[in-house]
Amino acid sequence: MTDTTLHSALIGASAQQVRSAIRSGSYSGHTAGLAAGKLQCNLAILPERYALDFLRFCQRNPKPCPVVGVSDSGDPYLPTLGQDIDIRTDVSKYRIFRDGALADEVEAIDALWADDLVTVALGCSFTFENALLRNDIPVRHIETGRNVPMYSSNIDLMPSGPFGGKMVVTMRPIPRHQIDQAREISARFPQAHGAPIAIGDPADVGISDLSQPDWGEAVEIKDGEVPVYWACGVTPQNVLLDAKLPLCITHSPGHMLIADVAEDAETTILQTQN
Amino acid sequence: MTDTTLHSALIGASAQQVRSAIRSGSYSGHTAGLAAGKLQCNLAILPERYALDFLRFCQRNPKPCPVVGVSDSGDPYLPTLGQDIDIRTDVSKYRIFRDGALADEVEAIDALWADDLVTVALGCSFTFENALLRNDIPVRHIETGRNVPMYSSNIDLMPSGPFGGKMVVTMRPIPRHQIDQAREISARFPQAHGAPIAIGDPADVGISDLSQPDWGEAVEIKDGEVPVYWACGVTPQNVLLDAKLPLCITHSPGHMLIADVAEDAETTILQTQN
Repeated sequence: MTDTTLHSALIGASAQQVRSAIRSGSYSGHTAGLAAGKLQCNLAILPERYALDFLRFCQRNPKPCPVVGVSDSGDPYLPTLGQDIDIRTDVSKYRIFRDGALADEVEAIDALWADDLVTVALGCSFTFENALLRNDIPVRHIETGRNVPMYSSNIDLMPSGPFGGKMVVTMRPIPRHQIDQAREISARFPQAHGAPIAIGDPADVGISDLSQPDWGEAVEIKDGEVPVYWACGVTPQNVLLDAKLPLCITHSPGHMLIADVAEDAETTILQTQN
Repeated sequence: MTDTTLHSALIGASAQQVRSAIRSGSYSGHTAGLAAGKLQCNLAILPERYALDFLRFCQRNPKPCPVVGVSDSGDPYLPTLGQDIDIRTDVSKYRIFRDGALADEVEAIDALWADDLVTVALGCSFTFENALLRNDIPVRHIETGRNVPMYSSNIDLMPSGPFGGKMVVTMRPIPRHQIDQAREISARFPQAHGAPIAIGDPADVGISDLSQPDWGEAVEIKDGEVPVYWACGVTPQNVLLDAKLPLCITHSPGHMLIADVAEDAETTILQTQN
């Protein structure tokens, strides 16, 4: 079967079932729309000697870099995010970066795993987009089957060690009368970029032309709609690349880690006492 | 003047003015009620080699250990929490622990500062208590001028490296008809312990006798009130002690770090872009 056929077959499957299909190699496609209601995560795997600086970087830039899980050094499991998540095999596609350049794209990283690697899982925009759609707020790039348009902004990140730079933002056109509601809904998800970073004039965030995104695809802004900007999970990926670490592993775009944690849980920690 | 007189004189002063009075040595009292509306923080200063495990511990236990600021290693300033915060002098009383035992209580730590120290600031219950009071929900220990009652619970913390143990919880008696509101209000402050951990029977959280708190003072539970339990900022302090680090510095109880960040801000990062 093709990935598209398999994606349809996995609709309705649990997070564990989807991870199992990925682990076994029977599914290697994107994860949008799968395991509805569960938290999906951006992924950054890096050597332990950079982990403290990277966690400090994320703490200082919580809107683009909301940490939802961190592994022990060398431990491929993420028990706070889900049962039996093995980060070496449970993401459908990974990107391997060496010295800041893409070196490979693979479907498992068990051959690369090492005792000094630390996994950092970060929240992703799927979470608040799902909430917008549930509240009848249109999300244009989903309606039109595109990738969300992403832009380098002029917003400085708070640096930490080798990590710093400018924030990447996404743009979604929102009907003017629904902007307050969109802000209020997304603010409920600090683990998924939270409230918008800016609303309105693209020049305010250093974007010269909305029709020319730096990543993803442009979308139409209809009459009565206003461009709304959110912090984007590509930010930490760019920051990691710019830091030119000898080794860094991320998910491939759209191929997220699916957790067992509910996307609207009070915390991203699976244990009920937290 | 006595600390009590000075405390009254500082009501209405800004966070920076209070820190300045502390830094100059003219005030060494507690910080409850000072710099209204500003975030107050629990403090943990520890050697860098333990910082990654401690930050992972906090990430895994976000309700007792909500991280609101982390310094660079050896840097005594905390620019994301406030202008010119010098952690060596800007807290009114510190406790020095060596190998897990209280070694000293001092009003400045500049003589102890070292290039490998990392400051971790954690949210504190003042934030949600202020919000409860603003909404006419009684807070018994404040009404009666006592310390909040704190109890060792039976709730396991998620371990990380040398850090682990049981959660410490606070108890506040809440009128039955206001419990939902108290839950909803405190849930808005994930940076300050968030929603309650448990409600009702103390045996559910491993407390045998509410009249015998492990720290603080017992408070009366009136007819129509129900005991409500929140995660407590003494948890990380206990966990640090149990880890028997060669050196660890905390604030003294009630002598919090006062930040410039608003206690109801979307993030605890001062820069407006975040």
